[in-house]
Amino acid sequence: MPFHPTPQHLQPPGATPLHALPHHDGSPLYVSTPAPSLGDVVTVRLRIPLAFGAVATVRTRSNPDQEPRFDDARPLGSAGTDADGYAWWAADLRVENPVHGYRFLIDMADGGHWWLNASGLHDIETLDSEDFKLVAHPAPPDWAATSVMYQVFPDRFGRSAAADTREAPDWAMPAQWGDAVDQLPPGRSHQFYGGDLDGITEHLDHLERLGVTLLYLTPVFPGRSNHRYDAAAFTEVDPLLGGDAALIRLVEAAHARGFKVIGDLTANHSGDGHEWFRAAHGTPAAPESAFYYWLDAEQRDYMSWLGVPELPKFNWTSPELRRRFIEGADSVVAKWLEPPFSLDGWRIDVANMTGRLGDEDLNAEVRQAIRQTMLEVNPDTILLGEFTNDAAADFQGDAWHGAMTYANFTKPLWSWLCRPDPVPSFFGVPLGRIPAHTGAQFHRAHTRFAAGFPWRTRLATMNALDTHDTARFRTHAEAEVVPVAVGLSVTLPGIPVVFAGDEFGLAGIDGEHSRTPMPWSTAADPEVAGSIDLYAALIGLRRAHEALSTGGLRWLHVGDDALVYVRESAGETVLLLATRAAADVTLPAWVVPLGGVVGTLPAELGSAVFSAGQEGLHLAATGASFTTWVLPGVTIAADERPVSQRGLAR
Amino acid sequence: MPFHPTPQHLQPPGATPLHALPHHDGSPLYVSTPAPSLGDVVTVRLRIPLAFGAVATVRTRSNPDQEPRFDDARPLGSAGTDADGYAWWAADLRVENPVHGYRFLIDMADGGHWWLNASGLHDIETLDSEDFKLVAHPAPPDWAATSVMYQVFPDRFGRSAAADTREAPDWAMPAQWGDAVDQLPPGRSHQFYGGDLDGITEHLDHLERLGVTLLYLTPVFPGRSNHRYDAAAFTEVDPLLGGDAALIRLVEAAHARGFKVIGDLTANHSGDGHEWFRAAHGTPAAPESAFYYWLDAEQRDYMSWLGVPELPKFNWTSPELRRRFIEGADSVVAKWLEPPFSLDGWRIDVANMTGRLGDEDLNAEVRQAIRQTMLEVNPDTILLGEFTNDAAADFQGDAWHGAMTYANFTKPLWSWLCRPDPVPSFFGVPLGRIPAHTGAQFHRAHTRFAAGFPWRTRLATMNALDTHDTARFRTHAEAEVVPVAVGLSVTLPGIPVVFAGDEFGLAGIDGEHSRTPMPWSTAADPEVAGSIDLYAALIGLRRAHEALSTGGLRWLHVGDDALVYVRESAGETVLLLATRAAADVTLPAWVVPLGGVVGTLPAELGSAVFSAGQEGLHLAATGASFTTWVLPGVTIAADERPVSQRGLAR
Repeated sequence: MPFHPTPQHLQPPGATPLHALPHHDGSPLYVSTPAPSLGDVVTVRLRIPLAFGAVATVRTRSNPDQEPRFDDARPLGSAGTDADGYAWWAADLRVENPVHGYRFLIDMADGGHWWLNASGLHDIETLDSEDFKLVAHPAPPDWAATSVMYQVFPDRFGRSAAADTREAPDWAMPAQWGDAVDQLPPGRSHQFYGGDLDGITEHLDHLERLGVTLLYLTPVFPGRSNHRYDAAAFTEVDPLLGGDAALIRLVEAAHARGFKVIGDLTANHSGDGHEWFRAAHGTPAAPESAFYYWLDAEQRDYMSWLGVPELPKFNWTSPELRRRFIEGADSVVAKWLEPPFSLDGWRIDVANMTGRLGDEDLNAEVRQAIRQTMLEVNPDTILLGEFTNDAAADFQGDAWHGAMTYANFTKPLWSWLCRPDPVPSFFGVPLGRIPAHTGAQFHRAHTRFAAGFPWRTRLATMNALDTHDTARFRTHAEAEVVPVAVGLSVTLPGIPVVFAGDEFGLAGIDGEHSRTPMPWSTAADPEVAGSIDLYAALIGLRRAHEALSTGGLRWLHVGDDALVYVRESAGETVLLLATRAAADVTLPAWVVPLGGVVGTLPAELGSAVFSAGQEGLHLAATGASFTTWVLPGVTIAADERPVSQRGLAR
Repeated sequence: MPFHPTPQHLQPPGATPLHALPHHDGSPLYVSTPAPSLGDVVTVRLRIPLAFGAVATVRTRSNPDQEPRFDDARPLGSAGTDADGYAWWAADLRVENPVHGYRFLIDMADGGHWWLNASGLHDIETLDSEDFKLVAHPAPPDWAATSVMYQVFPDRFGRSAAADTREAPDWAMPAQWGDAVDQLPPGRSHQFYGGDLDGITEHLDHLERLGVTLLYLTPVFPGRSNHRYDAAAFTEVDPLLGGDAALIRLVEAAHARGFKVIGDLTANHSGDGHEWFRAAHGTPAAPESAFYYWLDAEQRDYMSWLGVPELPKFNWTSPELRRRFIEGADSVVAKWLEPPFSLDGWRIDVANMTGRLGDEDLNAEVRQAIRQTMLEVNPDTILLGEFTNDAAADFQGDAWHGAMTYANFTKPLWSWLCRPDPVPSFFGVPLGRIPAHTGAQFHRAHTRFAAGFPWRTRLATMNALDTHDTARFRTHAEAEVVPVAVGLSVTLPGIPVVFAGDEFGLAGIDGEHSRTPMPWSTAADPEVAGSIDLYAALIGLRRAHEALSTGGLRWLHVGDDALVYVRESAGETVLLLATRAAADVTLPAWVVPLGGVVGTLPAELGSAVFSAGQEGLHLAATGASFTTWVLPGVTIAADERPVSQRGLAR
């Protein structure tokens, strides 16, 4: 029964039969050249359900130098009508700008027409910012999209024997590993558990067991706080963490296991104990004077991050600051990526505010300079930027590979899966509670904030349930939805993130409270062990199926309580059902290639039922569930004909 | 009966009771300071229908330096519940960046919440690009928003006696005034009617009769075409148009009548006959070599506008080009704004592509340099940029005051009011026909493309039915919808535009064919005279009511065939009904202040019926109509209380 939309029928995504809509994304099934150069001709493909109606022509609309240009697409035919009910089209685009936006114009045989862009299907013309995008900037490292990240707050992860030999500094309030985290000053920021880098090295087995591949360390430079975001220097690793030698040991041990390791750099500010700030504070003649924003001639008062005096804001108009910090092989950015430290990249703190103050905006210059230095020192490194809200404008591929953001994954996830608990702030929004959203709202929010990213940026953006700056997900979620949340983090485009301790089931009511020392002694408790196994299983799922990292994302159904989507590579189709409550979904049989279903994955998790019959595809869950089925893929043959791989053994 | 939306109830605008939604825009009722400076505290106000439900708190969300900040709003109370059923809220915002985005967060007493931004009401978080915006860049001239523009293509408007004394140049194919326009080469671009600037001066009576206040001349510099977008020099007015002296006479005569006059400058390219290009073409040693993009060492081949060799593209990396053309008092930009020429501003041709080529994007530098020069020479000048599609990204207030664009007005207007005639291109889109849209689609398209503009940019953006680059509206529209189209152009935010000849009822099937010589001899024909009277009446309406220029815009209803909206200043409320067919709309009585309705305006046009009774406000039209009613306004008193001016005599 063909579904033929008209403008009158167009409804918000929650009411639209998503499975019957045309689809395109940046994945290899749809884009021939993921990392083109300027001037390259790239083939882009569109997949239109036969049920969508009779299509007359398909064109792409590019916008080179901001002047629209249309290119005709050619029909590629269909892989079949019984179990792969789609017609495919292809167009060749010449990449004209470093970020080349394009969309599809679909002319229907009945005289209607539709636009398709990264935000979805439209019956009216669309915004340039929501175009699909080809990016001709240097590509991210190969391993970016296939990474699974583990985030460590060094004071709270592991404590080597050597830690006992170190004297706590003057600012520190020493705590025992089992002590509760103190959320309020003076304990806040100063409570000191004495975790160190060798303490992390000693626990790499745990990371390997989980299956993570990328270790992200919050700052390791000396500061006057337990979080070290108030750097006192960028020239050495904090001796309290074991110093430079301990970092070298950690990175070497991690690399030996095949892990990447990235550091955390504060490009927006230093600490007020930083050698540069101390040199300039009150000393207008100091060479470092131009590194900061002074409010008086004596250089006593200054601009700082959100008015926190411990965090004086960098002034990036200073060429000397750029030389010392971010430009070239002698810079801070370069030093730690080079041997013997050999970090594999940086997460940049407060990337959103960096270089921005009033009528000054040097953000693009700073981020591009950082990336340029990294390309010169070691192009196989990753650059992530913290940008907690709508990050799209800065994340077009000129510098940041991905965002540490909460807009497109974390907040929608909480709003769908958490209890509507009262909270003073919901990721900075003074709502008073966690909003209670439907699956349709999850889908809309995810799409709204991801649509502005080029595909490659989506793949390298962090899918975090929580971080060191937030409450922990588990605090507001029932145990039964944890597999759903972790499952979504490992199967939606982006880098899955485990904030150390989440896998132990830890809770935390805010960003301070969540910086919990790792409760290693509980690892063998059945509940904890089960949780760790759950994380390991889901991470294993992610790593076993490339489609979950780099495959296309096609939504088939969103309801109040259920999400159904596929990740698709040429080799395979992974079908996913996520539910927060009992749900029953029926879809036409043609939406996915059905031959060779290999069963529920991971076997120990799948509680949902899958059946395919004459009435179509039937997915049913009796409660919260996260279930995956691996199906054959569709490939585009050398002669451009789509081929369903139903016959392939898997 | 309160209407209380929930996420489940939220529908696309076509189905949403628009009149019951909270409202804010950039107009004086809602923003205390239209042209703030950095650091100023601005009060922003929100108006929420009582029928929307019980509101607990209202906050604004700003994003200074890209870091969200919330400010509490205070309730201002309500002007009354019978005929002004709204509660008002106000918040004070400090302007932190030159473009300071903000949105509203509305917490409902029942625990729900809503976001309001320039694109409307949302049940999930919203994009920064759709925020309301306070702009701290220098303000546009006072007269920008109150202008009514008349566009003249000089070869085709009026021909003075002196024209007979001039010899046609070698490129020209002389035509008689009554000859048909030749759309095809070689006539295209070369057919020469010999209109001149004194010919325009002789017809200023006509402009005064219409009520226009701003004359826009397409290029007057010499070229080798009838359109003169292929400038051969910027140093003199084309002698074929009467030379510099004729421009001085025209501007003086126009100024004497209170008109402003602006010129048209090609910043993207010159003609291949330009003195700069001729100096550099084939001559690598020429000082002007750096002004263009050469493709070979001998400087024979070069980049041009869309590959048209007559239009070589400027290379804005050249400092000397910037000096000669756009920077400082000796530049081309400055010269024509200074006495004795005294133009009142520029429309910049192909502003979208200017300074953009491949991986080079100097557009912001070029446009800002042009504006800076204008501020130095005469700050009371206007700068408009041609950007025919989604223009928001470049039009944030740093340079362009407004856009010559088709995205937010012209295309939606055609799609709502024109026949779905076959056309090879719909404003560049190869649809094959004019799309047939509903009123709801008109509203959505208008809002989608206007939402990205700061309010001041919306007010200075051109509301054109057509231009010298398009078919004429009348070609595809029945006579009965012309008042509707012109009515919308004079009452929606933006500068109304009359392309010379539209008021005579001219047709034209494309941008060449529309460049029709003015049929002055037909002015007394009853049909033509009636059309001119219609334009004059609607322009008179616009000029008589300041709310139509600078007042807020609140939509009350959009249906397939009817649009109902109000423009509101502190002094008055102008209620507008536009229909393309018979329509019947009932609204609650409280949506507008009803005391003192002064009747249908303009009296000769209003065919719709208005009544107010217990069942509410009733608007009915029997066919295509454009009707206006002037009602009392709401003011915010000095003590911040909203006051309904129902008692005021008008």
